[in-house]
This record gives sequence, C-alpha cells and structure tokens, in this order.
Amino acid sequence: MTSECTPRFLASDNTSGICPEAMEYLLKANQTDDLAYGNDHWTARAADRFRELFDYDCEVFFVFNGTAANSLVLSAMARSYHSVICHELAHIETDECGGPEFFSNGSKLLTAPGPNGKLTPEGIEALVTKRNDIHYPKPKVISLTQPTEVGTLYSREELLAIRAVADKYDLRLHMDGARFANACASLNVTPAELTWQVGIDALCFSGTKNGLAFGEAILFFNRDLAEDFAWRCKQAGQLASKMRFVAAPWLGLLESGAWRTNAQHANAMASYLAEGLSALPGISLMFPTQANSVFVELPPAVIEFLRQRGWTFYTFIGAGGVRFVCAWNTTTALLDNLIADIQTALS
Amino acid sequence: MTSECTPRFLASDNTSGICPEAMEYLLKANQTDDLAYGNDHWTARAADRFRELFDYDCEVFFVFNGTAANSLVLSAMARSYHSVICHELAHIETDECGGPEFFSNGSKLLTAPGPNGKLTPEGIEALVTKRNDIHYPKPKVISLTQPTEVGTLYSREELLAIRAVADKYDLRLHMDGARFANACASLNVTPAELTWQVGIDALCFSGTKNGLAFGEAILFFNRDLAEDFAWRCKQAGQLASKMRFVAAPWLGLLESGAWRTNAQHANAMASYLAEGLSALPGISLMFPTQANSVFVELPPAVIEFLRQRGWTFYTFIGAGGVRFVCAWNTTTALLDNLIADIQTALS
Amino acid sequence: MTSECTPRFLASDNTSGICPEAMEYLLKANQTDDLAYGNDHWTARAADRFRELFDYDCEVFFVFNGTAANSLVLSAMARSYHSVICHELAHIETDECGGPEFFSNGSKLLTAPGPNGKLTPEGIEALVTKRNDIHYPKPKVISLTQPTEVGTLYSREELLAIRAVADKYDLRLHMDGARFANACASLNVTPAELTWQVGIDALCFSGTKNGLAFGEAILFFNRDLAEDFAWRCKQAGQLASKMRFVAAPWLGLLESGAWRTNAQHANAMASYLAEGLSALPGISLMFPTQANSVFVELPPAVIEFLRQRGWTFYTFIGAGGVRFVCAWNTTTALLDNLIADIQTALS
Amino acid sequence: MTSECTPRFLASDNTSGICPEAMEYLLKANQTDDLAYGNDHWTARAADRFRELFDYDCEVFFVFNGTAANSLVLSAMARSYHSVICHELAHIETDECGGPEFFSNGSKLLTAPGPNGKLTPEGIEALVTKRNDIHYPKPKVISLTQPTEVGTLYSREELLAIRAVADKYDLRLHMDGARFANACASLNVTPAELTWQVGIDALCFSGTKNGLAFGEAILFFNRDLAEDFAWRCKQAGQLASKMRFVAAPWLGLLESGAWRTNAQHANAMASYLAEGLSALPGISLMFPTQANSVFVELPPAVIEFLRQRGWTFYTFIGAGGVRFVCAWNTTTALLDNLIADIQTALS
Repeated sequence: MTSECTPRFLASDNTSGICPEAMEYLLKANQTDDLAYGNDHWTARAADRFRELFDYDCEVFFVFNGTAANSLVLSAMARSYHSVICHELAHIETDECGGPEFFSNGSKLLTAPGPNGKLTPEGIEALVTKRNDIHYPKPKVISLTQPTEVGTLYSREELLAIRAVADKYDLRLHMDGARFANACASLNVTPAELTWQVGIDALCFSGTKNGLAFGEAILFFNRDLAEDFAWRCKQAGQLASKMRFVAAPWLGLLESGAWRTNAQHANAMASYLAEGLSALPGISLMFPTQANSVFVELPPAVIEFLRQRGWTFYTFIGAGGVRFVCAWNTTTALLDNLIADIQTALS
Repeated sequence: MTSECTPRFLASDNTSGICPEAMEYLLKANQTDDLAYGNDHWTARAADRFRELFDYDCEVFFVFNGTAANSLVLSAMARSYHSVICHELAHIETDECGGPEFFSNGSKLLTAPGPNGKLTPEGIEALVTKRNDIHYPKPKVISLTQPTEVGTLYSREELLAIRAVADKYDLRLHMDGARFANACASLNVTPAELTWQVGIDALCFSGTKNGLAFGEAILFFNRDLAEDFAWRCKQAGQLASKMRFVAAPWLGLLESGAWRTNAQHANAMASYLAEGLSALPGISLMFPTQANSVFVELPPAVIEFLRQRGWTFYTFIGAGGVRFVCAWNTTTALLDNLIADIQTALS
Repeated sequence: MTSECTPRFLASDNTSGICPEAMEYLLKANQTDDLAYGNDHWTARAADRFRELFDYDCEVFFVFNGTAANSLVLSAMARSYHSVICHELAHIETDECGGPEFFSNGSKLLTAPGPNGKLTPEGIEALVTKRNDIHYPKPKVISLTQPTEVGTLYSREELLAIRAVADKYDLRLHMDGARFANACASLNVTPAELTWQVGIDALCFSGTKNGLAFGEAILFFNRDLAEDFAWRCKQAGQLASKMRFVAAPWLGLLESGAWRTNAQHANAMASYLAEGLSALPGISLMFPTQANSVFVELPPAVIEFLRQRGWTFYTFIGAGGVRFVCAWNTTTALLDNLIADIQTALS
Repeated sequence: MTSECTPRFLASDNTSGICPEAMEYLLKANQTDDLAYGNDHWTARAADRFRELFDYDCEVFFVFNGTAANSLVLSAMARSYHSVICHELAHIETDECGGPEFFSNGSKLLTAPGPNGKLTPEGIEALVTKRNDIHYPKPKVISLTQPTEVGTLYSREELLAIRAVADKYDLRLHMDGARFANACASLNVTPAELTWQVGIDALCFSGTKNGLAFGEAILFFNRDLAEDFAWRCKQAGQLASKMRFVAAPWLGLLESGAWRTNAQHANAMASYLAEGLSALPGISLMFPTQANSVFVELPPAVIEFLRQRGWTFYTFIGAGGVRFVCAWNTTTALLDNLIADIQTALS
C-alpha cells in the first residue's frame, strides 16, 4: 500500500468493522455493569439463541478468535498422539503458525489434496488406511472448512459422504466455519442442515468476519466432547472477563438476522465482482465463486498497478493468483473501481 | 444474587463497562475499514504512546486477556523446565486454572509466603537456594503483582530489593499489572518509576480493569525477551485480526489520561469505602487499602444479608473475609448504600 | 564423597546394580535377534506374568523410568485443565522437575499435608471442596505413593478410605509404586490386595529399584484409561525399540520371585538398620521404618563425619534429617559399618 | 511371519542384540554399586571419550531412545512457534507419532522433497522464502538424517552447501544420526569431518542400532544450545537413574572401536546383499546402497513368499518396495539364504 492514496480493502473480510446491529447491542450491554466470566445477562441469552437457530440443544462457548476456536475444539476432539485430517490448503495447516499443534500439545495434521480446496472421502480414507502402526499418529478427527479457503462449498451430499467415512473409521468431524454464515446463505440452507443433520460434531462459527469486532462461537453438537470445555477455555486464555462484550454483539447479529443478511450481501458482492472480472478479456477465475471470495489470475503488471492504486489483497498459490474478499459493507462502487482499474491495467 | 433486586456490583472491577474515552475511540476506529493483524492506523500509534508514557523504547504487544498476557510473558522468560517464583496468593497460582503451566508446557510455579500478599527478598532467596539439583525445576523468573491480590502495594524500595535478589541469582522479573494504573495513581509515581527504573523486565498492563472491554498491553523493557514474541502470540490464539478494536480504545485511555484518572477514581472510592467500614463497630480491615480493593472481615449473617440485598462480592481466605473492588465508575452513592446495609445487618 | 575412600552406597536403592535373576534373563534375551517395539517373545510373556501375579486382566506397558511412568499415567487420567491431588512430599511434586506438568501440558498438582507422608481423606476432600469455580483446575486424580517418600505404608483400610473419597468426587486413583514390591513384602499382601482390590485405577510398578537396570511397568486396572496408551508412550519417547531388554529382565524378577525376595531383603536390612540406630544414645527415627528406607535425625558433626568416610545419603527436610535406603544387595556388614561410624562420631 | 518357521531378521538393525564389547562393559558396570543420575564412574568417562573421538569440546548427554534424542534437541533449538525443515521422508516426520511436536509443544515440521531422500539447498531455501508473515511458523532449524531414511549419504560438500543456506537464513543444523556410525564408516571420514567441521550444531548419535540395548548420545557442538539441557532431559523422563548402564556399554563401543567395526560390518553386509540382489534377473535397487540398508522392488508374489519363509522386513513407498537392513551381527549365510529364497520365488 502506498501512502499517497486511500487504501481500498479487499484483502479479507476482517478489514471491515463492526456492523450496526452488533454495535447497537454492544452499546446496550455497556449501559450497566454486569457479572463477569459469562454470568451476565447476555451470554446465556446468546447461547440460547444459537440453540434456537440450530434447532438443537448444543453446548455453546465463546472465545476470542478463530485460531483459538479451531485449536481448542481440535484439542478436545483428540489427544496429542492422535492426528487430524485436513485439506492441504486448510487454514489450520497453513495459517495458524502451529496453533493446533500448540493447543493440542502435538497432534499431527495429516493433509490430503482435493479439487477446489475440498477433502474427498477417498483422500481421507487414503490417509487413514495408509498405515496403522504405532509410529503413525492415529487419525481421530476430520477437519473441514466450509466455505473452503478457496471460497468453494461442500454440498450436503459431499458432507454426508465424508460423515460416512468418519463413521467407518470412528473419526470425529470438525467444521471450521470461519465464513459459515456465507455458506448457509449461499446454499440457502438452515444452519441445522449444514451441521448436525449431516453429522458435524462441532462447529466454529466466526463472528469476526460476519460483523463483530471479535468473538467466535463454538457449538458442540456431540455434547460428550464438551465435557469440562469451559475449563479448557479458561486455562488457554480464552475466557473473557467482560464476556458480555462478545455475547451481546453476537446477539445483535442473531436477533436482527444480520448474521444472514450480512453474509448474503458479501456473497452478492463477490458474485458481482466475479461477473465483472470474467467479462474482462483474458481473465479467468481460479475457483468457482460460491461464497464471498473471488480468486483470479492476474498478470504481474496488473498486480503491481493495483498495489500502487492502494488496493489491498492477498496473492495466492504462486505468482499470478489473487484473492479478493467481500464483506458485509463492501459496495458495488468499490468493486466497480477495482474492475475499472484492472481494465486500465490490462489495456 | 436474588432475582428480585438489582445487582450491585463490587465483586471485581471487571464488572464495569467501557469508559467513555475508550468508547469514543472504539467508535472512531469503526468509521472506516482498516488493515488486519495490527497493521492498522491505531496499533502502532498506541504502541508509540506507551513508549512515551513509559519514557522507554520498549517492545509493545496487545493480547486479549490477563491470563494470556501473564502466561505468554512467563513462557517467553523461561523454558518448560524452569520455575517461576511467585507469592502463594498470586493470581497466576490460584486463579488461572493452570494457564501458566499450559502456555509454558510445564514451568513450575514455586510459591512463597509473605505479609500483605507481597514477596520478600528472603522468601525468594529461600526458594532459590533450597536446592540446586536437577530434580528441582531451576528458578528463572520472579513474578510479582502490583498492586497485589490483596490490594497492597510494593514500594519502589521493595521492588529494588527484589531486583537485587534477581540480579544475584540471574532471575528475570515479571510484573503482573492487572491493576497497574491503580498502583501508579496510588503511589503517585510515573509508570517508568515503577517498572524499568526498578528493574522490571516485562509488564502486563491490564486495560480491561481500567475501562476497556478487553485487551492487555505487554511491555518488554528487556527487549531480548521479546524476540519473535509476535509469533508466540499468533500461535497461542492471541493475535486479534481486528486489532484496532483493542488498540484504539487503549489509545483513548492514554491520550485522554483516563488510564490514570480512572484509577485515581477507583482508588478514591476504595479509600472512601475503607473509611466508612472502619467507622463501623467491630469491623476491621484485613489488609491496608492501598489501591482499589477493600478486604474486610464480616460476620456470616452480614454476608448473607448482603447477598440477599443483591450485593456481589467475593469471599476470601476462609469464612469471614470479603473483598470489595471499586472501578472507574463506582459511585459514593453505591458505597453509601453498602455501608448502610452493613450497618443495618450489624444492628 | 571424598576421593580417598570407597563410596558406601545408601543414598538410594538406585545405586544398586542388576540382580542375578534379571541379568540371567537379559543374557538369555540376547542370545538371538528378535522383533522390535515389543513384538518380541519376551514382552507379551512378561505382560501375561503381570496379569497372573495381579490376578487381573489388566493392560500392561513398559517404559524407561519412573518420571515417565508417573507422568504418562497422570496425563492419561486427566486433561491439562484438571488437577492432580498428591501429598506435599510426593515425588511428582518435588523431584521430577515439572515432569507431570510437561507430559500433561499443564495439569496442576494440588498438594495436601498429612502425617507420615500420607494423604488423608480429609486432606483430599479439603482440596476438592475448597473451590469449584472455573479458575481453579478441576480435581480429577488422586496420586499416592506406596510406600511413601518417607518410607511409610498405607494400610488397606487407609487405601479403601481414600477410594471412598475418590468415588464421592469422581476422582481417579493413581499409585506411584516406585517401591511397590517393598510395600507388598512389608504388608505381606498380594499385589492384588494392594491395588485393584482397593480401587487403584493404575499402578506404576518400578523395576529399577527392584533389581533392573531400567524399566517400569505400568498396569491399568481401569482399562478404559489405557485407550491408545501405546501411542502416547511412542510419542513421548518411551517406546523402546529393543523392548525385550526391558521385558526379559522383568520376567526374570517375576518368574523367579525375586521381585518379592529382593524387596523382603531390602526391608529386612532397613529394619536391621533402624534397630541399630534406635539403640544409639540420643538418636531418634523421624518416621516409622515400614519399608526399605530409614529416616533419622543426626547432629551436623555426625553428618559431616559420615560424608568424610564415604557414605552416600540424602539429607532431608531441613538440616538434621538423613535418609538411608537399603536395596536388594545391601549387607548387614555395610550397615554394621555405618552404625559403628555413627557411634564413633557421636562419642 | 508364520509360526512354523524361525524368523529371519532383516527388518531393522534394532532387531539385533547387544554386541560383545557393549555387554562386557555392562557386566563390568554391574560389579559394584555406583552413584545415580550420571554421577557414576562411567558417564563422565564416556562423555570424555566422545570428546576425544570428535576432537571437540562438545556437550554430551545420554538419553534412552532416538525419538527422545531428536525431539529434545529440536526443542532446544527452536521454540514452539518456530518450524523445523526436514525431508518429507524424515523419520521425525513420518515415524515418531508426533514426538517432535509433543516435546516442542507445537513446532511445525516443514517438509521438502529431494532425490535419494536428501534435502537440497534449493528445497530448504524454497521453504524459508515461501512466506515471512506471522501466520507461518518461522523457520529456525534444518534437520537432516545421515545416512538418510533410504540408506543414502550426504557428502561433505552437500553438507557444507546446506550449512551455507543455514548461515544465510540464521538456521540451526541438526543431524539425526540414527546410523551415524554407518555414515562415518562408509564415507571413511572421522566423526569430526562429518559434524562440526561441516557446521552441524548438534548430533543425535544412536547406540541402539550400533550394538547397545538402549541409549543415544546427544552431542552439542554449539554449546549455547545445551544451556540447562540436563534439566530438559530430566523433566522429559530421559534421565536414567542407573545411567551407568547406558554409559558403560557406550564406552565399550568407543574404547574397543566397535562403534566403527560394527558399522563397517553392517555396511559390508548391505553391499553384499545389494550385489547379490542386483545379479538377479529383473530386480532393481530403488536407491544406491551407501550404508547398511538395501531398498529393492520386488513382485508381490515374492514378498508373500518371503513372509511365509519367515523373513521380516518393511515394505516401503507403495506396494513393491522392500527394505532390508543389516546389523553388526548379520551374516553372509543369512543373506545367501535370502537371495536364494528370492531366486526361488522369482523362478
């Protein structure tokens, strides 16, 4: 980013701020003092609202961020000598600086390839059956990301097929829902249809990318796995003393429906961008745009030009890949500007 | 707490909300998108302001809460086979559910007694010289809390004496500043006078208890200890993606001076309460009231009466001890009510 | 130990060597090649012999040493946020350099006092009921040492009383049997009577102190706790590739009965020494001599004289306490010399 | 392995027993009692002999097995948020059940491909320069195996080239010497020429595969990395109380020269086998036979036939690969039998 121009944020949905519905509840929660460590008026209410939304009596916990949410759930699902199967592009493998291994005290991640950033039953089975000796960390968990790191979606049928493999080998199923709302919105399904109804044992549902300042919800549909989980969060530095400032904004998202409308908007913006880019000569998308991220190959000169113009984005998988992520507050005006700049650079 | 009455919060300063100065900056930081992971406009500015306030070119990091702040610093100061010397009442020993041992992968806490919740040079030396064999985790760090868990303060002379022991045995010195602002205000000293000028290697400076929603600042005066510390925070789930919502409110505290005026107010309220309680017949304070906490012995019937009236507080050290903590927003009206209720209960 | 005189070993039973029965089997196991990692002819046979000896279909594992045995079992019994209740003099608390915390990734040890080095039901209950909030590591395991660190024994009645507390609070019961054979021999009971019949969930049975070069057996009577335990041992560096050189010597101890006769001898030697010392003027034993250790208070000048004469021993609990430990090969001649030297020093 | 026939051991050099020179010293060390925890007459002597052999004043430690040796050294070289670069076939990656991640509390292994099981400077550089953001565990160590897992050797020139990359990026260099003696013997170089003279910071020198029952030596040429390492070993359950039974057999290997002659013999046997196999029609070696392992592709029917005949071996890299490993006691008679059996099976 050069200093002379205004930054234009498309690097990630975490560059966006707090959405109005979340802010409203944050301000409400600040009107009076309240009990600490989740014993306040907001936390239980938010947990109940999750249970309603998912139509399931799940266990609900709130932690600060996604690395912690994923890592804590995985460490509850496995012991240090177990392994976790994930896609080779999974966030837990590439972008958490060894967080899962740290929280679990050593659980190995076993990675599988798969088209469009998705695990396949065959890929999972290959890792499980590869070896069964004691020198190989015993597979215990499948972790999948919905939507994936490359903005694609598992269909319900694909999830059921993975559950079948999990059942066959007695594996637990974790869903990294860093953009879970976008998945529900895009597939036009209920949260229940995308989780416990297809055999997900635990979900990390991100609020940060959905319009909060911080805060991820952890939902255990397999309640046995949640035994003493509150102690785990506490020990690992993830129990907020002023918990209401995580829970109340979540409640804002849930009660207003913003969790879904924010996601719908972000998805729509990504579609808009994908269409605009596809119409440009010589530009091709790297992956289907199924949620709120767009991956496109751009010539180096275009990338350089965009950076000079203040655009923020990640480059991805080698030189030419670029990721743009839309958020709850992304505008068509911004995207039009981007498309225009790319057009200029191309010509 | 019974349901029929309004709760009255004196259990901890973490039942208070976000102070106006912090909220103002939170709202400002929400006006535009910004870069993630601390690369925003607020984080570097807040770090610089800390350097000015402490008059020292220290390394500054922000994490979510106090358990994480203390545990991460201690794990940077020691290895798993080292030990950390702390007071037997220290928060890290009694109230973090094994957090320090978890983050450090096993560092043992060695506890010493000491009057008024304070470590003494003699107590530290006794632990260091007790044994030097390989079966004993090698002492490497002294961790002290300022103000202490019982609301008392180390004088600068006491801190210098502890530093002398640290130097003698090549130990590092950590200050848990969960209420550091209250210490500065009460002793009427600068932050510098209470930290690097008396040989503190690293400070955990709590914002949560000083008027923020979340967020602790970690300051390394011994910069060598901060090597690669950003990676440590990331791995341990303590790197906020929307970091500006921790940093900007901190900036609000620092630029407005609220960090100190909030503390002064809380301290004044505690003094007011301590005086009020001392004037009651048969009531005696357990510890000198030197910061924002008041510890007092109350008869069981009084404790029961207070609970029925909706007062929230911790009982402490056996049956009769009660802790009241004042915050930036505690009022004399509230305290008058408390004193009146205790008077009623006593008579 | 001064260089001019032959050392005389009474510091610990681990200064002794390999007993003839163990050596015989070690040599046998070396006559041919064999499969690695416990798939040899000796390991399964030794495990079966343990099952016969204990009259129970327990799970049996072999590891290298006692720190690992205790730490691995405790980490299988608890998670990192749980706590382990032990006596304040327990080896796991004072002499393993934080090993249990390392292997468990942070389980806190909560220590209780108790006469003669023994936990009491009351002491355990006090720790369990002290607090039940989330900031306190949740008690999950009781670890007791039989015989204790001060050479005393829990009676079967005492063990049953502790089991009753364990049942009341859903706690697991671990026995550190660093000198378990000495306990069986002294109490004249079967291994079964001292373990699963009084509700022990898992036992660490030391071979090193009983006549081996290395090697501890871990017996899980609560088989659920042994799930995937072989992977845990492997990951933690405790799976011997040439396992037969641990298992075969154990088999030598078990098939010959030397495990018991070695212990009987060591106990008898300790009794002999205790009687000899008690007869000296002004000498008093610190603890009842119930196994193979003798604790006695000696004047500083006597301690100094003994060191000059080449005696090796530990000093214990402050200045005047001394520990002498007898082993399978301790002789009355050695003890007579010791007693004579003390007598000389006293006069 | 079927039960009706005698097993014939070529699966690994760890199916062999204790060589005569090691046994002689084991028996000697058992003639008298001695001090525990390495304070005996043998441990310091063995450490000194290593210093002579390597012509360097290195720090020397003894631990029980290879998983522990590698994992402890790596955890001393890096912190949990650092990463370790190794070959994709490295033992630490594939065969230690997550041991390195467990001991280091989460250090990530980053794997590189490379012909003949060897890391290349380019492969290392690619991992280091791939990313430098905080979400990527910071590379800190290169771990290489000499000889490699596929029985090949790094030349001194190759090692120097890797050291140059290490210097460029401030990385530490660890050598897994599970068969280090075989490397020295095969390359006909001194231990010094293969370690500190080419910039190795620390070596794990295996005794188990060289003729001991247990016991690996750890040599730190970079002495700074060994600070407080004895405490690390103790905490991690790797300090033998009867240390002399590790150290004395090592001394037997070193003083007799058996460490080298054992390796020479094993290497010669592997060459003999490789030649014999190469002469068979249609048989091709998978890797050059440079130490004591032979890798060969065999038809499934041949593999099945060999198993029925009692041969033990590992299959490797997919269906057709087989590994035979020769040890200090492998005979040409055994190898002739193997070759004959393969010939029979082929015809």
